[in-house]
Amino acid sequence: MTRSTGPFPLATRRDALVTALIASVAMATGTSPVTAQTDPLPSWNDGNAKQAIKTFVEKVTRQGGPDFVPVAERIATFDNDGTLWSEQPLYFQGMFLLDRIKALAPGRPEWQTQEPFKSLLAGDLKAVTASGTRGIEELVLATHAGMDSAEFERIVKEWMATARHPKFNRPYNQLVYKPMVELLAYLRANGFKTYIVSGGGVEFMRPWVEAAYGIPPEQVVGSGIKLKYELVGDKPELQRLAEVDFIDDGPGKPVGIAKFIGQRPVFAAGNSDGDLQMLQWTTLNTGQRFALIVHHTDAEREFAYDRQSQVGWLDKALDEAPSRGWLVVDMRNDWKTIYGP
Amino acid sequence: MTRSTGPFPLATRRDALVTALIASVAMATGTSPVTAQTDPLPSWNDGNAKQAIKTFVEKVTRQGGPDFVPVAERIATFDNDGTLWSEQPLYFQGMFLLDRIKALAPGRPEWQTQEPFKSLLAGDLKAVTASGTRGIEELVLATHAGMDSAEFERIVKEWMATARHPKFNRPYNQLVYKPMVELLAYLRANGFKTYIVSGGGVEFMRPWVEAAYGIPPEQVVGSGIKLKYELVGDKPELQRLAEVDFIDDGPGKPVGIAKFIGQRPVFAAGNSDGDLQMLQWTTLNTGQRFALIVHHTDAEREFAYDRQSQVGWLDKALDEAPSRGWLVVDMRNDWKTIYGP
Repeated sequence: MTRSTGPFPLATRRDALVTALIASVAMATGTSPVTAQTDPLPSWNDGNAKQAIKTFVEKVTRQGGPDFVPVAERIATFDNDGTLWSEQPLYFQGMFLLDRIKALAPGRPEWQTQEPFKSLLAGDLKAVTASGTRGIEELVLATHAGMDSAEFERIVKEWMATARHPKFNRPYNQLVYKPMVELLAYLRANGFKTYIVSGGGVEFMRPWVEAAYGIPPEQVVGSGIKLKYELVGDKPELQRLAEVDFIDDGPGKPVGIAKFIGQRPVFAAGNSDGDLQMLQWTTLNTGQRFALIVHHTDAEREFAYDRQSQVGWLDKALDEAPSRGWLVVDMRNDWKTIYGP
Repeated sequence: MTRSTGPFPLATRRDALVTALIASVAMATGTSPVTAQTDPLPSWNDGNAKQAIKTFVEKVTRQGGPDFVPVAERIATFDNDGTLWSEQPLYFQGMFLLDRIKALAPGRPEWQTQEPFKSLLAGDLKAVTASGTRGIEELVLATHAGMDSAEFERIVKEWMATARHPKFNRPYNQLVYKPMVELLAYLRANGFKTYIVSGGGVEFMRPWVEAAYGIPPEQVVGSGIKLKYELVGDKPELQRLAEVDFIDDGPGKPVGIAKFIGQRPVFAAGNSDGDLQMLQWTTLNTGQRFALIVHHTDAEREFAYDRQSQVGWLDKALDEAPSRGWLVVDMRNDWKTIYGP
């Protein structure tokens, strides 16, 4: 949407704050933060990718320039799995799901004979995959519903604090990409509001993304199940129901953006065909727009996969990238470091 | 949810900006904006209501005090109809709907014989009301679906620019409450992030609320219909489908807050039983919390109604207010002015 002025023109808090910040920094340093000499993207190798990002940001923030975008419209949306953190050998929320099924299994003896639980407990992930969308949905609802929101948050935090990645033996929230964390901070320093727009569960992400990415809970768009408000005695609770509410993936991403943000992004980043429509929605618009695809090319430092992968399948979006002008980031060559700190 | 620190602690942009703003204002004026002598609520009469709001804000912003709330958690949610602007003789989105039905009727001859369209076109609003939820939904979908989002935004803006309120003969977006606009600005100046959480349509509100209230589109939570992404040629569109997606009213308000914001508010304002659960969700929590109810007591300057009204029905929430400690704002006595500027 575009902005209008009206009978009571009030600056948004964001506009006022950004203006004040820029003014105060400029006063203190005698320079502008945008033109400061420190490299805002130190984990990116010098080259086309890094330069393309910086050129874009300089263009849209140059007051009076032909490509200037007002602060209120500087919306940047980022996919999470495979774009901000790793997603192999399985989406990390899938790893969480596996751990939850195992933890809950002693109290659910019927799972020993009931699919897809039986195969999952036997470690036969191929059979689980063969159970299709309906099977996966059953697993999700068995592990993500049936408690209130506060309890689910507690479970996620505990898992994040204790679980370890099978290849790297580190907590999952340490497998975030340092170059992307720098990119998020660089955009924010230039007046962008950064959002996650992920196929992952919104309540799975909110407990830890602020510490990992500097993105607050209210700037996370994701998939979700239905919630129900209840006053239990004098304690209000939101019960998590065993029913899918919204899938924020593929064509669902522009829908999620419209529902939750209500503005078309100026910048978007993804890594798979699940991001294709978000990249289209962002760039097929008037004005300077930017999209990038994180291409997983680094089998040594991370994982290498694209068109043949079950997880993070990247095919059509890779084909469309050249004609759309989307930047394809080559992780092996463009990134000095993969993980932080 | 509560916040955790993690392996990559990054301040949010909001925190950094608020700190910078406070510092720069303090440097420039030699004082703190909180203790400045100018009255932040000039349209409120001196008295209990005004004092209660100021006392609360001073408590939660006093660094090191027992009731301090960090900036990142200062979420304030406001109902819209009857809380931020008027809602009589009918919710203004209802007036929009009536105007749309009349505008579209020439192309829909079947409406002349089909209920509830027939009654509506004959001006028989009682018969329309008697058609119940299903009838109202039909009217909503006939006027709010069947176009893409950009086209709907255009229709809303055009209506807002041309329609006039039957009693006040002013554009509807000039019937916003000046004291509440001041309250929003006062909260924002004290580090709050202000949201609308309304039963109204989110895409009906977003085109005009920023100019009216200083609330950007991404901080509007409301009811919505389903959207569908389509690439038409090379132009991406979000089609508005004739299917309700979410009703952000009553017990739906805490759900909407959880889905869109992901944090429990510290401050909430409403005016009807449709806000009851939001006020409970906000205040029945640990820590200093604040809720207020705008009570429509001013038949001369606005409208007087509560327990008997079809629109803005206020009954249970008014009963609960004293024991919950919710402030009931008496529009006639507490407000110096109703409308701006």
